[in-house]
Amino acid sequence: MSNCVFCKIIKGEIPCSKIYEDDRFLCFLDIMPINKGHTLIVPKEHHETVLDMPADLLKNMFVLAKKISKAVMDGTDADGFNIGINSYEAAGQVVMHMHLHIIPRFKDDGLKSWANKQYSEGEEAEMAEKIKSKL
Amino acid sequence: MSNCVFCKIIKGEIPCSKIYEDDRFLCFLDIMPINKGHTLIVPKEHHETVLDMPADLLKNMFVLAKKISKAVMDGTDADGFNIGINSYEAAGQVVMHMHLHIIPRFKDDGLKSWANKQYSEGEEAEMAEKIKSKL
Repeated sequence: MSNCVFCKIIKGEIPCSKIYEDDRFLCFLDIMPINKGHTLIVPKEHHETVLDMPADLLKNMFVLAKKISKAVMDGTDADGFNIGINSYEAAGQVVMHMHLHIIPRFKDDGLKSWANKQYSEGEEAEMAEKIKSKL
Repeated sequence: MSNCVFCKIIKGEIPCSKIYEDDRFLCFLDIMPINKGHTLIVPKEHHETVLDMPADLLKNMFVLAKKISKAVMDGTDADGFNIGINSYEAAGQVVMHMHLHIIPRFKDDGLKSWANKQYSEGEEAEMAEKIKSKL
């Protein structure tokens, strides 16, 4: 995609701090890290969201995510890490080229989980039925 | 694991609002949802974190995640969704049995992204080297 910033990084038209590259994926540091060491895994093929990705590419991406997560943990001396994929703008996806975030986490790093909601009586069972009906 | 709440759910000793089940995975609604429809994918085998999961199980989990995410989007009329895996307590993992979150997202649902940090001069390249050295 000619206007896609990640396609430009993959083509070498925009620089990045590369962590890893193979024929299908490029991994580099997010320039706006949640914590320092925040790494992105980007498939070289342009797919907008995870729903657009072929199964084989998806499988390879998650085997790679395990390997890169371990290196991010070890390289940053982290106490934990988050793996995240945001799909569509409402979910915080900024670049519309599928990417996976690996965020190193530290005890007392101050990043707070989102607050939980509660189901009213019967609402949880109803919600489960709605989702199951779409499978 | 006899004291693991997810192992108990898998064995049917604790109830859940089931979305999907096969021989390797159970999917059910998170009882403390970030947004209603928040779904968990849990491998039936007990693995503490994603780093402990065998590659084959990992591959299957993400192919399943794509299928369940689509159903969560459609069943909740969401505008987007987050896929997340928290590894270790510092990253917000509460149940120490690996699980994948699928959180439906809505325009203006008020959930805010974490703030970004900035690298100082030279720090980004140094960080990339540290992570690469652990690959």
